[in-house]
Amino acid sequence: MRILIVNPNTTASMTEKAATAARAVAASGTEIIAATSRMGPVSIEGHYDGALAIPGLLAELKERQGLGYDAAVIACFDDTGLEAARTFANVPILGLCESAVVTAGFLAQRFTVVTTLERSRVLIDNLVRRYGMGDRAKVRASDIPVLELEDAGSGAIGKLRAEIERALLEDGAEAIVLGCAGMTDLARELQEIYGVPVVDGVAAAVKQAEALVSLGLSTSKRGSYASPLPKSFTGAMSGFSPVLKVG
Amino acid sequence: MRILIVNPNTTASMTEKAATAARAVAASGTEIIAATSRMGPVSIEGHYDGALAIPGLLAELKERQGLGYDAAVIACFDDTGLEAARTFANVPILGLCESAVVTAGFLAQRFTVVTTLERSRVLIDNLVRRYGMGDRAKVRASDIPVLELEDAGSGAIGKLRAEIERALLEDGAEAIVLGCAGMTDLARELQEIYGVPVVDGVAAAVKQAEALVSLGLSTSKRGSYASPLPKSFTGAMSGFSPVLKVG
Amino acid sequence: MRILIVNPNTTASMTEKAATAARAVAASGTEIIAATSRMGPVSIEGHYDGALAIPGLLAELKERQGLGYDAAVIACFDDTGLEAARTFANVPILGLCESAVVTAGFLAQRFTVVTTLERSRVLIDNLVRRYGMGDRAKVRASDIPVLELEDAGSGAIGKLRAEIERALLEDGAEAIVLGCAGMTDLARELQEIYGVPVVDGVAAAVKQAEALVSLGLSTSKRGSYASPLPKSFTGAMSGFSPVLKVG
Amino acid sequence: MRILIVNPNTTASMTEKAATAARAVAASGTEIIAATSRMGPVSIEGHYDGALAIPGLLAELKERQGLGYDAAVIACFDDTGLEAARTFANVPILGLCESAVVTAGFLAQRFTVVTTLERSRVLIDNLVRRYGMGDRAKVRASDIPVLELEDAGSGAIGKLRAEIERALLEDGAEAIVLGCAGMTDLARELQEIYGVPVVDGVAAAVKQAEALVSLGLSTSKRGSYASPLPKSFTGAMSGFSPVLKVG
Amino acid sequence: MRILIVNPNTTASMTEKAATAARAVAASGTEIIAATSRMGPVSIEGHYDGALAIPGLLAELKERQGLGYDAAVIACFDDTGLEAARTFANVPILGLCESAVVTAGFLAQRFTVVTTLERSRVLIDNLVRRYGMGDRAKVRASDIPVLELEDAGSGAIGKLRAEIERALLEDGAEAIVLGCAGMTDLARELQEIYGVPVVDGVAAAVKQAEALVSLGLSTSKRGSYASPLPKSFTGAMSGFSPVLKVG
Amino acid sequence: MRILIVNPNTTASMTEKAATAARAVAASGTEIIAATSRMGPVSIEGHYDGALAIPGLLAELKERQGLGYDAAVIACFDDTGLEAARTFANVPILGLCESAVVTAGFLAQRFTVVTTLERSRVLIDNLVRRYGMGDRAKVRASDIPVLELEDAGSGAIGKLRAEIERALLEDGAEAIVLGCAGMTDLARELQEIYGVPVVDGVAAAVKQAEALVSLGLSTSKRGSYASPLPKSFTGAMSGFSPVLKVG
Repeated sequence: MRILIVNPNTTASMTEKAATAARAVAASGTEIIAATSRMGPVSIEGHYDGALAIPGLLAELKERQGLGYDAAVIACFDDTGLEAARTFANVPILGLCESAVVTAGFLAQRFTVVTTLERSRVLIDNLVRRYGMGDRAKVRASDIPVLELEDAGSGAIGKLRAEIERALLEDGAEAIVLGCAGMTDLARELQEIYGVPVVDGVAAAVKQAEALVSLGLSTSKRGSYASPLPKSFTGAMSGFSPVLKVG
Repeated sequence: MRILIVNPNTTASMTEKAATAARAVAASGTEIIAATSRMGPVSIEGHYDGALAIPGLLAELKERQGLGYDAAVIACFDDTGLEAARTFANVPILGLCESAVVTAGFLAQRFTVVTTLERSRVLIDNLVRRYGMGDRAKVRASDIPVLELEDAGSGAIGKLRAEIERALLEDGAEAIVLGCAGMTDLARELQEIYGVPVVDGVAAAVKQAEALVSLGLSTSKRGSYASPLPKSFTGAMSGFSPVLKVG
Repeated sequence: MRILIVNPNTTASMTEKAATAARAVAASGTEIIAATSRMGPVSIEGHYDGALAIPGLLAELKERQGLGYDAAVIACFDDTGLEAARTFANVPILGLCESAVVTAGFLAQRFTVVTTLERSRVLIDNLVRRYGMGDRAKVRASDIPVLELEDAGSGAIGKLRAEIERALLEDGAEAIVLGCAGMTDLARELQEIYGVPVVDGVAAAVKQAEALVSLGLSTSKRGSYASPLPKSFTGAMSGFSPVLKVG
Repeated sequence: MRILIVNPNTTASMTEKAATAARAVAASGTEIIAATSRMGPVSIEGHYDGALAIPGLLAELKERQGLGYDAAVIACFDDTGLEAARTFANVPILGLCESAVVTAGFLAQRFTVVTTLERSRVLIDNLVRRYGMGDRAKVRASDIPVLELEDAGSGAIGKLRAEIERALLEDGAEAIVLGCAGMTDLARELQEIYGVPVVDGVAAAVKQAEALVSLGLSTSKRGSYASPLPKSFTGAMSGFSPVLKVG
Repeated sequence: MRILIVNPNTTASMTEKAATAARAVAASGTEIIAATSRMGPVSIEGHYDGALAIPGLLAELKERQGLGYDAAVIACFDDTGLEAARTFANVPILGLCESAVVTAGFLAQRFTVVTTLERSRVLIDNLVRRYGMGDRAKVRASDIPVLELEDAGSGAIGKLRAEIERALLEDGAEAIVLGCAGMTDLARELQEIYGVPVVDGVAAAVKQAEALVSLGLSTSKRGSYASPLPKSFTGAMSGFSPVLKVG
Repeated sequence: MRILIVNPNTTASMTEKAATAARAVAASGTEIIAATSRMGPVSIEGHYDGALAIPGLLAELKERQGLGYDAAVIACFDDTGLEAARTFANVPILGLCESAVVTAGFLAQRFTVVTTLERSRVLIDNLVRRYGMGDRAKVRASDIPVLELEDAGSGAIGKLRAEIERALLEDGAEAIVLGCAGMTDLARELQEIYGVPVVDGVAAAVKQAEALVSLGLSTSKRGSYASPLPKSFTGAMSGFSPVLKVG
């Protein structure tokens, strides 16, 4: 089984971190392939960055179709382009936020997602509500710019830990979800420190991808995830045009 | 006051139709400027088309910034790229779905949105729920490809009317919202035929834009719609990079 | 276009303030007519005052029907009698709370309504939920009796500002809605001070009224807002009886 | 214990029917006093009638205060004026809809309310949602004008039974709630015919009133049901003014 | 009328306390019979204790069927086994949580439930949401083990009072619900101290039981509460097998 | 990795079917151990059967603790005893309904669960809402007694297929979830017939169990799933008592 991890931002060190996290949990027969977007922002912080990361994401998904992959993971906690990717692909596509909150839901009745910036907090809170966890999960921002997570001396981990401690104290959180792909390397250690489940989205998504492939399940092609209709695309987007059926 | 209408698909005849509808309701002091996306799909039917229409939409919003506009309307009922556009712009940005369901909410306690294809129905239903109208509005698909609305002989209007009649009979609909920018020219006639309010998103959005500008209100720059952070964008997206602050 | 502003309490200075706010935002072709209720309480603070203000409100709406108005605004943030007025009238009727929260919804994903007394807070919170904004808006009371807003020396503005500051700090509010008609004159100044959109219900409702009239839309007469059935009314209410159909 | 039943419409035969239903279920020590509103509409069908029935309702509640009652029931399924009455009174006040749906909730997980006209259906559906039963209860209209329930030859019962049968067949209803005070005499017979619990609001409200009085519980005077503040009321409403405190 | 109070834990002093509370509010013609479970835990603190208390509860309900009772109350605030008991019995079955929150709902628009341990808080919060009160009621834990309520010197009452005070101050609670059967003797005194309604579940459930019996209403046997199907039960549960129908 | 599948009913052929389904999807390193409850009902149809199946379920979980298992699956679609089991165990515990609806949620935006009897439909609908899928999933009953699924000549499959067809036609279902452990052998075939994802709970739960174990995640022991407190259990339940701490 081959699982493609696509980092929808263009920062290769984050891709590497995600790939490492993915390989650490992958089953013995699973090969992890990692790709970094080649067009778009260096990090995804808010709606604007996210929207402009989607073409780069879809380009990676498309380019690797020939080589073959059995499922793909979008390595951003905002679930950037998740719905578009699901209509595009004929394999399962997983997002970090959906995978992580679902995983936490098996372990805890109430939990808290700790993300980076305030601008991402509401965006993720909207996702959490859409995934049906609005009554069970709170979302907190720890005021860390995404790329500070790549910089050991930035003080980011201290801010993250302080916010986790507030979640445990004030929210009655029974588990913690790390709300950014760049935190993937911290999950195990934080779980040991705090003694509650700490869920990382990259790892969670890889296991969901393996599960769906093993089950012979793929995205429904009926209704909202139906394959894109053949039509003309123009300009810089012309490469994304589904083939037009002819007579 | 200048309101920019951006059609996020590349079909100029739809832009023209939307501009006409906009001008028909614009206040005397309002100038309507219309723009058609120059990169992306010819019509937006589902998540894939929508995601790939966003860069074209943002490019139009950006290019016309120098010329000046006081508010902008995204002329697609899927509210394509609405959140990204709001973070980008320092003027009010309106979407058709949000404007239309809000408008219908002043007129009726229960109403039905009639859109085109099944793949758009669930997408719009998700929007309607996010806008808080899930308990009040039902969404129906009338099985009309978007571009058939541009073709008088396609039978599209018959299908649309049949679905409106089902909404009145089965849903207890007190008003109808037309769920596609391509239906904008039909609202008045359908309102006369059925004797209930029929709300068109283009017209509704223009009036909301005028209202916000008159009120001296613009998108909040605090929290989820904060301006994009300065950072590097790569490849085909490099033109979208917010300027990096220096020193 | 003529828009009738009815103050459902009997305090003429509040009517004057609302009319001034309305005129400040009205389009050039819009005439604002203001009316003060002649029966009912001097201010509306809670359910009791509100219920007993409705006949006075409806009387004003009725009396001015002959003179003609194209839409009406009920100048109380509790949306007093809004549903009854909508069944009565054959023109659009706007409430301040519904207009303001809808307007804020175009500008911010999360916002806070700051109202007067605790007894009004829950009432408005119920409205906010009914309008579908329960997940997005918080309601706060600032412990100001309504009529203190008419008294410059009352300290009311200090209390209001303190509560706005708490909303920004604790709620992550991206915009503020002023939750009382008596605060209408403060919106612009507070917006400048705090740098977030500050929405006033009177102004918002006037623009919604203008929008609906321009769009040729009026309250649905099908279903819950159907015109009152002809029947006999007794006692002090006899003047409100719809005409009985004969033969 | 004395329970006051106030019919907020002016039709004495409906009051009589409600009083009979109340007496049939009252405990041995409970005295039922019935009052008919003396100002307002002959029946309550929709928001307009309901709003204009409130002063008459409050007048009856007020006038009988001297004589004494331990709780009051508002004998209309729209829970007309319920919140205003609760702020007014220092005894428990019950509405039919709230009492009936709560009662049905002890007996069934899913149930259907069958009311009279379409215009009342949405109004009651809104109440049902506010009372937290939106996921469990469906509301249906049987197209019966309220006063037809007073006329044995009107065919009203046939329409009501047809709608109950649809509820059982199509909704999976486990119980039925009769959604109009005028149906109070039919509950027992319909329960025998259909073999599911049939809940009448008048009877349910009387038992809730008895329960609250026995428990020594009354409406909270903290927050949203706090007593009306002393202030001046004008015109036809002047009799409703709470006394102004004097220095 | 005979009402059976079953304490689903095995602590007889709690049964006694509940029976005393029940008798204090029972109508003159109501006989209270009390039973203590003879298999299961000494107190119910969380899901595990609750699940294992159900057979003991059902055994008591079953054994007393021959003697006759007209309704039963399950004397635990977790509504332990409520749904199972309702399918079993052909009389009304009441739970403390459902009865108490419904009762509070007639008295207050916002209220707080104060329970014992954190592990019970989320469990009760889930119940409160299921009963439709999620938007109106908050649940707090006061960190009191259940059996400390039986021990006057434990300091439990101090903790409970501190939590009630936080509810009044921070939640805007208009009423308090005591969230444990072991608190039943404290309601009256706390109501006097704090001047807001304080609802005890035992008392509330007794009155609901009386109400349903008086109304001739019993649990629906259609749908989710239908009587258990005749089938074989094995092992320690064999005594619970409904009789198998024979040819 | 060893995964324990516990069938909470006492029908060994259903256990066998579930174990076969589990082994068919288990990873190469996963050993499936199957256990059949030895006390309780032969099938679980509704709340009564479910509640009385929990001790038998917990007994199997307990007895096999010494032998060791890394996760357990409760092989009933009603998620019988899931919360109690989670407090008991220090390994992940999975239910079929939660696992299946979560799995379907990765594949489809709208889907339908098809279960057996009407009495189970509402029970499962309540679960689906609790798991946050109430807006996305509909539940249908196909009127099949559980044990008919064990009888090839019963016509059960015909009824099931008819209900799936209604779901596709009337609900706009994009995927189907099989709502009974006894349907586990039908998923693959039905998926081929209907061309939409068909999710079986047993298989889904096994993969979730594998995922959680691989991720080093287990049920939170903080808050609602905290380990049972040491206390005395009496009578037939005495074997379930957690050990009392001494000194």
